[in-house]
Amino acid sequence: MTQKRVWLFHEGNADMRNLLGGKGANLAEMTNLGLPVPPGLTITTETCMDYISNGNQMPENLMAEVKYALKEVEDQAGKKFGDASNPLLVSVRSGARLSMPGMMETVLNLGLNDSTLQGMINLTNNERFCYDSYRRFLTMFGSVVLDIERVEFENVLDTVKENEGVKLDTEVSVAGLKSLIPAYKAIIRQHTGEDFPQDPYEQLQAAIEAVFRSWNIPRAIAYRNHYKIDHNYGTAVNVQTMVFGNMGDDCATGVSFTRNPSTGENKFYGEYLTNAQGEDVVAGIRTPKQIAELENEMPELYRQYVDIAKKLEQGYKDVQDMEFTIERGKLYILQTRNGKRTAKAAVRIAVEMAKEGIITKERAIQLVDPYQLYQLLLPSFDETAKKSAVHLATGLAASPGAAVGKIVFDTEEAAERGNSGENIILVRIETCPDDIHGMIASQGVLTLRGGMTSHAAVVAKGMGKPCVAGAEDLKIDLNNETLTTSSGKVFRKNDIISLDGGTGEVMEGSVKTEVPEMDENFNTLFTWVDEIKRLAVRANADTPQDVAKALELGAKGVGLCRTEHMFMDPERLPWVQKMIIAGTPEARKEALDQLLPMQYNDFYQMFKAMGELPMTVRLLDPPLHEFLPNKEDLIATVAAKKALGQDYKSDEEMLHVVESLSESNPMMGLRGCRLGLTYPEINEMQVRAIFSACCDLKKEGLDVKPEIMIPLVGHVNELKTVKEVLERVAKEIMAEKSVDVNYMFGTMIEIPRAALTADEIAEYAEFFSFGTNDLTQMTFGYSRDDAEGKFLTRYVEQKILPRNPFESLDTTGVGQLMEIALQKALPVRSNLKRGICGEHGGDPDSVKFCHKIGLQYVSCSPFRVPQARLAAAQAVVEENSLAHSQL
Amino acid sequence: MTQKRVWLFHEGNADMRNLLGGKGANLAEMTNLGLPVPPGLTITTETCMDYISNGNQMPENLMAEVKYALKEVEDQAGKKFGDASNPLLVSVRSGARLSMPGMMETVLNLGLNDSTLQGMINLTNNERFCYDSYRRFLTMFGSVVLDIERVEFENVLDTVKENEGVKLDTEVSVAGLKSLIPAYKAIIRQHTGEDFPQDPYEQLQAAIEAVFRSWNIPRAIAYRNHYKIDHNYGTAVNVQTMVFGNMGDDCATGVSFTRNPSTGENKFYGEYLTNAQGEDVVAGIRTPKQIAELENEMPELYRQYVDIAKKLEQGYKDVQDMEFTIERGKLYILQTRNGKRTAKAAVRIAVEMAKEGIITKERAIQLVDPYQLYQLLLPSFDETAKKSAVHLATGLAASPGAAVGKIVFDTEEAAERGNSGENIILVRIETCPDDIHGMIASQGVLTLRGGMTSHAAVVAKGMGKPCVAGAEDLKIDLNNETLTTSSGKVFRKNDIISLDGGTGEVMEGSVKTEVPEMDENFNTLFTWVDEIKRLAVRANADTPQDVAKALELGAKGVGLCRTEHMFMDPERLPWVQKMIIAGTPEARKEALDQLLPMQYNDFYQMFKAMGELPMTVRLLDPPLHEFLPNKEDLIATVAAKKALGQDYKSDEEMLHVVESLSESNPMMGLRGCRLGLTYPEINEMQVRAIFSACCDLKKEGLDVKPEIMIPLVGHVNELKTVKEVLERVAKEIMAEKSVDVNYMFGTMIEIPRAALTADEIAEYAEFFSFGTNDLTQMTFGYSRDDAEGKFLTRYVEQKILPRNPFESLDTTGVGQLMEIALQKALPVRSNLKRGICGEHGGDPDSVKFCHKIGLQYVSCSPFRVPQARLAAAQAVVEENSLAHSQL
Repeated sequence: MTQKRVWLFHEGNADMRNLLGGKGANLAEMTNLGLPVPPGLTITTETCMDYISNGNQMPENLMAEVKYALKEVEDQAGKKFGDASNPLLVSVRSGARLSMPGMMETVLNLGLNDSTLQGMINLTNNERFCYDSYRRFLTMFGSVVLDIERVEFENVLDTVKENEGVKLDTEVSVAGLKSLIPAYKAIIRQHTGEDFPQDPYEQLQAAIEAVFRSWNIPRAIAYRNHYKIDHNYGTAVNVQTMVFGNMGDDCATGVSFTRNPSTGENKFYGEYLTNAQGEDVVAGIRTPKQIAELENEMPELYRQYVDIAKKLEQGYKDVQDMEFTIERGKLYILQTRNGKRTAKAAVRIAVEMAKEGIITKERAIQLVDPYQLYQLLLPSFDETAKKSAVHLATGLAASPGAAVGKIVFDTEEAAERGNSGENIILVRIETCPDDIHGMIASQGVLTLRGGMTSHAAVVAKGMGKPCVAGAEDLKIDLNNETLTTSSGKVFRKNDIISLDGGTGEVMEGSVKTEVPEMDENFNTLFTWVDEIKRLAVRANADTPQDVAKALELGAKGVGLCRTEHMFMDPERLPWVQKMIIAGTPEARKEALDQLLPMQYNDFYQMFKAMGELPMTVRLLDPPLHEFLPNKEDLIATVAAKKALGQDYKSDEEMLHVVESLSESNPMMGLRGCRLGLTYPEINEMQVRAIFSACCDLKKEGLDVKPEIMIPLVGHVNELKTVKEVLERVAKEIMAEKSVDVNYMFGTMIEIPRAALTADEIAEYAEFFSFGTNDLTQMTFGYSRDDAEGKFLTRYVEQKILPRNPFESLDTTGVGQLMEIALQKALPVRSNLKRGICGEHGGDPDSVKFCHKIGLQYVSCSPFRVPQARLAAAQAVVEENSLAHSQL
Repeated sequence: MTQKRVWLFHEGNADMRNLLGGKGANLAEMTNLGLPVPPGLTITTETCMDYISNGNQMPENLMAEVKYALKEVEDQAGKKFGDASNPLLVSVRSGARLSMPGMMETVLNLGLNDSTLQGMINLTNNERFCYDSYRRFLTMFGSVVLDIERVEFENVLDTVKENEGVKLDTEVSVAGLKSLIPAYKAIIRQHTGEDFPQDPYEQLQAAIEAVFRSWNIPRAIAYRNHYKIDHNYGTAVNVQTMVFGNMGDDCATGVSFTRNPSTGENKFYGEYLTNAQGEDVVAGIRTPKQIAELENEMPELYRQYVDIAKKLEQGYKDVQDMEFTIERGKLYILQTRNGKRTAKAAVRIAVEMAKEGIITKERAIQLVDPYQLYQLLLPSFDETAKKSAVHLATGLAASPGAAVGKIVFDTEEAAERGNSGENIILVRIETCPDDIHGMIASQGVLTLRGGMTSHAAVVAKGMGKPCVAGAEDLKIDLNNETLTTSSGKVFRKNDIISLDGGTGEVMEGSVKTEVPEMDENFNTLFTWVDEIKRLAVRANADTPQDVAKALELGAKGVGLCRTEHMFMDPERLPWVQKMIIAGTPEARKEALDQLLPMQYNDFYQMFKAMGELPMTVRLLDPPLHEFLPNKEDLIATVAAKKALGQDYKSDEEMLHVVESLSESNPMMGLRGCRLGLTYPEINEMQVRAIFSACCDLKKEGLDVKPEIMIPLVGHVNELKTVKEVLERVAKEIMAEKSVDVNYMFGTMIEIPRAALTADEIAEYAEFFSFGTNDLTQMTFGYSRDDAEGKFLTRYVEQKILPRNPFESLDTTGVGQLMEIALQKALPVRSNLKRGICGEHGGDPDSVKFCHKIGLQYVSCSPFRVPQARLAAAQAVVEENSLAHSQL
């Protein structure tokens, strides 16, 4: 080894992560930025591997090099290692190339011994603090360096606490702490046969070796195995000066943000304490002062601090969250990192920093977290009010927002009372399409079963309606109309509860809410977003109200209009059921003739609301049994009536119909285009309604753009056959009405086979809309209705899956299929229109992936449109910066 | 056009299909092989397109060329066109490049007119035949060439029949036939304003034009559209001498096979009649003579015929099915084609022809149809007995073979009585895993619902048990234990029925069966098969009996041992249910401890039967609710008891358990490795049982080769996590027993995502077994339980899908995923063991695909092992001949 093994902080830089470790490189970078970082040195990762390959022997002359560098650290710190009057104490920490938090060892306050202890007492005037530091150091040194079980030290401390009759470490008297020192030394002597080393250099060498060795302790090896980190990287060792904010009134410690993290206001924000340790600020024993007061107390240091803060904000191009300590009139920055902030603050900070010229618009776009943006659009609970609320249960955070209302268990009742102005929370075991009108009329929805993509969750998210799903700790008794918590508390119908759909919390009574609004900054940011992004963002919308909301939030069309919700309307359901039960095509046609004018009106209103932006209408998709009464209810009714000798004929007849339509796995059964191929009359009626409405609107001067989407195609012949019939119907109607509509026929790509044979399918489809909900189901073989309740949550917890693939697109598997589809389809039809309409269309990471693979639009529920737009813009920024870095 | 437009048969050859059409090229080829084909000429397809593009005008000089060529035909035939004493009659037929059967026009007996008619009467001495031929010619010419509705001619014939009081055309008197001629001529005159043309050349030109025009009649255009045949190909026209076997005692006509098509015996086989038409042989009015008699009657012609037959067999390298006519002492071959034959005959013919040196072993292997081979291994019905049986219904041919037995509706009863020796047919609405012991004990299974891959079909096929599934015309009344046919015939319990699982027929009473055996030829053929094939063939087997059968049929291991069937044993089910209901891991362990020794014994017996060949054991796969009582039955019971005020507590408790395990789409729910990750104790118990058994057998000197298969992996982490735990258990047991077993851990590739991420999965899997049943389900998004009943059959009928993808692998979609998986996995693990264990492993076409993409083995139910072996060998032969053709 001829390479330099010991580096002072100012000798390194941020790019030397491999040699100096992540922490060492960062400390070097901060030092070079001119920050008053407590001085120190880093021993390289290679030296660690030398030590290990050498059979855990210190490389020759290493300690001499360390001592040499430490001299300079002493000069910078103005203290001396082992000096009784002005002692330099150091921390010795590991720091690998990749972060392995908590896996390896750390020793603090190294350099303390019987004599430097006295020096510290003199300097701090705080005997309790110094003895506490010394006993902690002895414990750490004993356990980490000398391999003595930590519990041995703790047992002694426990005895002292017992004798003094106290419970917390902080309650032990100074005398008690003092008494620990000889006791701890005795433990060390007993286990090692040698005295605790008073020589600080001896301490230092032992600590460095302990850190080296900690690279290969079992938990570190296991961690590297798990994360596939190379076992030959080794760890660096950082030896850094300890500083103390509690050495007198010219000392202080505090935390601060360069801007207000709640509101975003461009004003220094934070707290500090004079003559105190960092922990004191957080602990709440003394009340910290506002950072502004530091200007009065220590004007020069405050100015220094503000200068540094501004420099850091400009350097890191983001709000900084800083920790500082003032030791005897000297300012040290211990840490700086990008500050966390609320969505509101994030938008303001980004826009203002850009306007101030600190950052570009591109950077401003990157500074707002799209996942957080949803917060801005929905009512939320007043945080203080929430803290004091009584918590009843926690379910899945299925659809964010705050909702307060009276418990109602029955959908019809919820619909009626909600529509007449009452605030209702619909509480159901689970929801089904029948519940939609109840959901619409409620403030929020609470279900006991079902996951993040259960019916309740998906529909609620689409409506921007708060929903807590799968709150399994609660019990419903439908007969008595009660809701019981796990602690046995019983709520009745009309009792008031509050739901936080963003956290999954259910609370008692009416918790205060606040309604945020979109401000000037929001609008400015989204002007920039729209300038830069290339992906169009559409909305999934089933009603004219949805369309209006979507337009308000910046959608440029509807990517998915589901027609089945239109069939669920209570007025129409009888006709829908007649259509299903119909034994002949003629009888079916008769029922459909009743539905036609209603569908005409649906589409007339939808397209009118949409204006001249494109709208994709998906033809009827779900299995028909969803429109019929529940099978299990019918079985129970028939059995009960039979047992009682009552007439059960009509129930049994309906049961036979339901049974003939019921399937073992309806998700993979007779639905989508399979339905259209089985009962062509249904699709024909829908296309008739769509084109009649569009032709009439066109005549009224509106250049509508219908896109007819045929769902669940898995083989090109399905699409070909259905499309041929429907396009003929469309042309007939346009001929009848003597007007030409600008239309397209296309398909959802939601079956793996469709993606794999996209070249064949592209011959007949003018557009592809990736239906990634179903595509995820089929690609993983997960039924979303079952998986989330039964095993998916555990899979994510156990890290078997990195994320729930129904929330964020699985780019490795499902995304691969999307890429295959595009690679196959585009050579066949270069102008293929291509987008996504699964739930993933609103998930920022998934939106970025869609941008990357060359989709032209994403479509998501109206309330997720802004975050999708932002993510689309971020995708461009990231792409540009990647291109730049590759130059 | 300077190209030759009119070709004599001997001028063309088989490669000229594009110019001469398929039929023309074949006639040329037969002529060139030296066969005495009735001479003739072919007008090219290009000439047809000239005619059409010329506005349906005969190309200049074409008829001159035809006349010129016809002179030569006259010479070859020894007859003259239009000659009153020795007339040449011809047929005029279409013949496109690709066969379009029945789509275009044909005219027979052209050349007949009032004078040649007399010549024919003199030559044949058969007035009835000649007048019948003339009136047919007039009808054909009138309708095909002159576009007169055929019905006009038929009406006149009907009037004659009415007057004579007869029903059949053949019953009309000669006088009646004579009377038709002037009547038909009158019809022609009336419609065209001209007389029927007596000039044979005028007839010929008109007929040629009619054939040309028939290229563009609506049904031909529609046919080409459907099969995507180019509309510019055109049709050739074949003008061929008609020959007659009814011109006297030196005439004959017959059909014969070069070998016996039933037994395969190398002996001329066929029938003939002297002085007769071809139809007479088939019609059954006169009893035909055995072909051997021809040797006595016409020894020289017989020798000629035998010579030709041998030459043809050698030329076509296959048994020939020939039609011949002897006209006035001259032999003509009208047609020769490869003969159809029984499976038994196919094997004998192939082996003997190879031994005779006529064909190679490779050709012998190609001569047997693997799809047919199944016949050989199963009992079948005596064909004569079957013909006279009373047919009750037809369902799906779910699992071939003949079964006769008493109707039993209850599984328990079937099991009990079947095991005590009675012949039982288990009749169920549909079957579930509970029914297995009843199925095992029955002769055959009949279900009213479910498709080709329903539970009943799959399990029955696996057992080689005849099964007719989805016989929807039948009705079961379980209360009264009756089975009712669509015609209202009622069968009771214990009535005897017969099932043909190979055709789906259900018959009344006991139909006579015969049991075929594997003979010397079979064994010889399979020696050759095994010499050439590269794919290993394993069997899917769940019992030692299955294993024995598999070995007998040539399997080289077990590719899939499903452990769930072991759990279904009535003795164990209570423990299995206790395991499922167990609230804690401890309670579950207790139940599993009871199951462990039973599983140990299962595996001990299985591996012992398997010997030193490898066996893949799949860990428990199905959703747990399959082991519990039926949910709907429980709902009905609870409702009924509730209504009657009876105690329903225990039923309700079980219902709660069943409900908590029930899923909307169980196929995509908690099963496979998801089960193993949720209840690790189950898999651990199974691995403990497997390794204990294997270690003990190893100690007894048997070098067993267990391959542990983890099912339903979709993400590498699932496999990794499960495998880590299980391999540890395996190692513990081997350490305890102090013996090393040669084992592997691997996975099924049955989830699309597994195929797409096969590179990741191959890092942890030592083998891949493609589970193409589930892979087909997920790739198409078809639940096989639902699809076949609801839409798949119709999809195949409507040609939306070319074949049922559960029967024959969808190479475009599912096969593509398999190829992707191999392309990704092999670079990661070049020695990856790779096979298939879905139902497709026994489907010959799918086996060939598996060979092509580089699998190492296929695995299928024992009875399909021979056909899989044969297909594997054929794959090599096809590959070699492809390689040869590309040289």
